[in-house]
Amino acid sequence: MKELHLISTGSQPIETFVHISSLVHSYVDYIHVREKHRAAKEIGMIVEKLLEASVPAQKIVINDRVDVAVVYGVGGVQLAYHSLSAKQIKERFPFLRVGQSVHTFAEAKQAENEGADYVIFGHIYETNCKEGIKPRGLTSLQELACSVHIPVVAIGGITPMHVRDVLTAGATGIAVMSTVYYADHPLSTVQLYRQQMGEDTWTF
Amino acid sequence: MKELHLISTGSQPIETFVHISSLVHSYVDYIHVREKHRAAKEIGMIVEKLLEASVPAQKIVINDRVDVAVVYGVGGVQLAYHSLSAKQIKERFPFLRVGQSVHTFAEAKQAENEGADYVIFGHIYETNCKEGIKPRGLTSLQELACSVHIPVVAIGGITPMHVRDVLTAGATGIAVMSTVYYADHPLSTVQLYRQQMGEDTWTF
Repeated sequence: MKELHLISTGSQPIETFVHISSLVHSYVDYIHVREKHRAAKEIGMIVEKLLEASVPAQKIVINDRVDVAVVYGVGGVQLAYHSLSAKQIKERFPFLRVGQSVHTFAEAKQAENEGADYVIFGHIYETNCKEGIKPRGLTSLQELACSVHIPVVAIGGITPMHVRDVLTAGATGIAVMSTVYYADHPLSTVQLYRQQMGEDTWTF
Repeated sequence: MKELHLISTGSQPIETFVHISSLVHSYVDYIHVREKHRAAKEIGMIVEKLLEASVPAQKIVINDRVDVAVVYGVGGVQLAYHSLSAKQIKERFPFLRVGQSVHTFAEAKQAENEGADYVIFGHIYETNCKEGIKPRGLTSLQELACSVHIPVVAIGGITPMHVRDVLTAGATGIAVMSTVYYADHPLSTVQLYRQQMGEDTWTF
């Protein structure tokens, strides 16, 4: 089963993020709270609101703040280069699913060696979030996916029409931010992603 | 035994902070890593350097980042209003000594009710770190110390010559930042604090 990850934009009001997440969570595998400018208490409040909105704890992934993830008992954490290492987290909190955000082949190999459960690699296509930075493209994705043994989730400018190319290149899943959270119709957008992932019968 | 806490300034090079800490740690009870602008990995690197410099892990306190404290096995955490709550931390990580930074009577009572081991209250005297904000003074300290049953550590503009007044007002300890870390002679400054705390025979 291919994974669909949603990631908060970091620029939306909490209420909007929680509302959209509550509409679409049945169609996605993971919802990442990636609000780098927010303090631990605020991130915890977001998690509380997601749980109140019936988003399953196991689908919630917290960016960087491992302490918030453990205290709220959510499923996983997403680590960046400036975070604690996957190895440290796996040793101390083996029950957490650990993703590592990577931008190079070397970083992906290191994540694998350190015990990360998967990597998020990007950006694949041009995106406003990474303006002026050259996208890594499908060829890099293909090379990376062949070289590591853990799942590779692709991110960056992936619209529904890109999905099949990205999966063909070897991605085990995709991660999206603004194309869902800033969509006019988030639910149908998520359903379209699912359809393109070959899982139009996805139900719960 | 009265407690002497040192707190990093957040504005010194890591090397300077670690060097001074290595010189003085035998004379203090706790060294707080309070580097709010730094990421988890960097804070972890500071802890590693402190440990390499023979600062005992039990003396190290991490501000806000409970995950770093747990992963590195240090003694405690210091929580701010924007942190996870003392209750959450005590439930999940009962082995951590938890301090709460408070500025009002109500915050101190809440910290006590939530299971914090102590509070840091201030600022007592005028200090450059809190320019333009009226200090809370010795009377407030005295009222607070009478009202809560957990230790109250005083902070804010406390020079060695203030120490006796602060302790007489009911503080169980003092916390200092720049008066030690920006001192011309950090070691003798710390020794002077100890002397004023009535523990001039303090040795290890």
